[in-house]
Amino acid sequence: MSLPRIAVTMGDPAGIGPEICLRLLADAGAVQFCTPIVFGDASVMQRVAEKLSLPFPARVMNLGEWHAAGATLSGPALLDLQCIGVEDFVPGQVSARCGDAAFRYVISSIEAGLAKQVDAVATAPLNKEALRAAGHRYAGHTEIFAERMRAERVCMMLTSEELTCSFVTVHVGYGEVPGLLSVARIRDVIELTAAAMRRVRGWTPRLAVCGLNPHAGEHGLFGQGEEEKFIVPAIEEMRRQGCQIDGPLPPDTAFLATRRRQTDAYVCMYHDQGHIPMKALAFDSAINTTLGLPVIRTSVDHGTAFDIAWQGRASASSLLEAVKLAARLGGREQ
Amino acid sequence: MSLPRIAVTMGDPAGIGPEICLRLLADAGAVQFCTPIVFGDASVMQRVAEKLSLPFPARVMNLGEWHAAGATLSGPALLDLQCIGVEDFVPGQVSARCGDAAFRYVISSIEAGLAKQVDAVATAPLNKEALRAAGHRYAGHTEIFAERMRAERVCMMLTSEELTCSFVTVHVGYGEVPGLLSVARIRDVIELTAAAMRRVRGWTPRLAVCGLNPHAGEHGLFGQGEEEKFIVPAIEEMRRQGCQIDGPLPPDTAFLATRRRQTDAYVCMYHDQGHIPMKALAFDSAINTTLGLPVIRTSVDHGTAFDIAWQGRASASSLLEAVKLAARLGGREQ
Repeated sequence: MSLPRIAVTMGDPAGIGPEICLRLLADAGAVQFCTPIVFGDASVMQRVAEKLSLPFPARVMNLGEWHAAGATLSGPALLDLQCIGVEDFVPGQVSARCGDAAFRYVISSIEAGLAKQVDAVATAPLNKEALRAAGHRYAGHTEIFAERMRAERVCMMLTSEELTCSFVTVHVGYGEVPGLLSVARIRDVIELTAAAMRRVRGWTPRLAVCGLNPHAGEHGLFGQGEEEKFIVPAIEEMRRQGCQIDGPLPPDTAFLATRRRQTDAYVCMYHDQGHIPMKALAFDSAINTTLGLPVIRTSVDHGTAFDIAWQGRASASSLLEAVKLAARLGGREQ
Repeated sequence: MSLPRIAVTMGDPAGIGPEICLRLLADAGAVQFCTPIVFGDASVMQRVAEKLSLPFPARVMNLGEWHAAGATLSGPALLDLQCIGVEDFVPGQVSARCGDAAFRYVISSIEAGLAKQVDAVATAPLNKEALRAAGHRYAGHTEIFAERMRAERVCMMLTSEELTCSFVTVHVGYGEVPGLLSVARIRDVIELTAAAMRRVRGWTPRLAVCGLNPHAGEHGLFGQGEEEKFIVPAIEEMRRQGCQIDGPLPPDTAFLATRRRQTDAYVCMYHDQGHIPMKALAFDSAINTTLGLPVIRTSVDHGTAFDIAWQGRASASSLLEAVKLAARLGGREQ
């Protein structure tokens, strides 16, 4: 039985990505459940390995060797995409060169996923400013995957030990959220979340859908009736399709410990509604999954951490969790 | 040395207010640090006491006796304001009669505070729908106190064991928040919070001010520049006046455990930004304080809980904490 093959993008070369990828490839636990293949630059990884006295992977391939290896590949490997050299940038600093390299690792992983060369993708962090400086106008990984994989409806799902949240809107300004709500969008996110959680749990999940306004509007006291206009009809439609849904819930009491225990996943209307409780309750273990793609994609939920880049102080635990979840979801789909 | 006298409003008669007030008056701990005087209705309290086999307070006064007792009063007491009879309403149901009675307890407590008959006020929950049905158009306690005490600038502060948050906006719809932000308002809230926390802690507090947008706007990537337009200038002005302030912080990472440990209080832009982490981390112990009033006012942070009203299942722990905080803040101000 072959283990699921997981493409792991190296992330922004100037961030903690190279270090955590080295730690992942050297991890004795990871190879028990998957074959991790880092999509990155060998010269950068080698420099970081030397600087931090971390083991450098035994197996390094270029793109030709990778395509030739095909299904026979087993054991951790580094795919050297040769996008950037160590002299081209300064660790810990935003640059267009790094933004472009990080973008190209992602594109290569998407191509590998669509070609079935890997079973799933896990991504190390990229820097949005660097991405933008390189002329790639995406809010983040999710948008790149959605566009390149031609996925019509995707949503972000965050998973930690404490709770799982998916999002109707994510990387938009606070004020733009109400205008982006619709029955169709909320219904899509409920549907994607229910399907993913059914796969993870093995049973019909119980979902909690948050309101938008304080106290979920409190029967029209607050807000413009967004709960009644958009959220309630979406919930009712999905209930008719067999989903188990509580809501719309007051967003603050939704995350009480008692409610969390009976909830498999939350559907949140905006970024901070779900990110705040997630991070308040648990940080390192949060994993980001993009639902609705033809290939499973998970990600760490931390940033490039330029302040501690290349210093030997970064933890690979979140990346390891992301790879685990990718292997679980990606492996099952075969 | 006389103990601080705390007016405790009974809240909506049809909710859990009467029960938790009875439990408070019977609490052996409370009388160690204050003289609690419940502002409510004796007939209602008596009926609940009989139904639940809870002790009824030994000392009951009408308004005339209360004014006559003056500074000589010591030990727990019930001020019988005779606003409603037990036959006038159904426990667990919203009604205009109950909303009006709850409102009048609050007004009496405000008068007692302004007349220095009590050192502080702690409020049991009222029901906003009942309040509105009675024709009193306030979003909540805070607004009643602010108007009746002619306070020009007030803000809500929530306190739990885990964290303290004050609010630039509270009971307004999600979409109204951006339009309510201003440098002056944010500066006022920072100033009120810093002053209160200095009194509570005994040192210059370290405040954390949250941004409005995801990632606090991430240098203009998200939002309409609310951080740069309103929040940053307010922070800078208050720093010049000697305040210790971090921010504007990304709202999600602001509540990480590491950040919480170094933060005395948070300044939040909207209701759920602070209520979500507060309730995710701790529920029963949260206390609501109105800053900026001439008389200290604290409150439980739970609702009327009509579903368990008059059933003997309500906990008075939050009310007890609210009375404790009122006694500490009110007592010190003398």
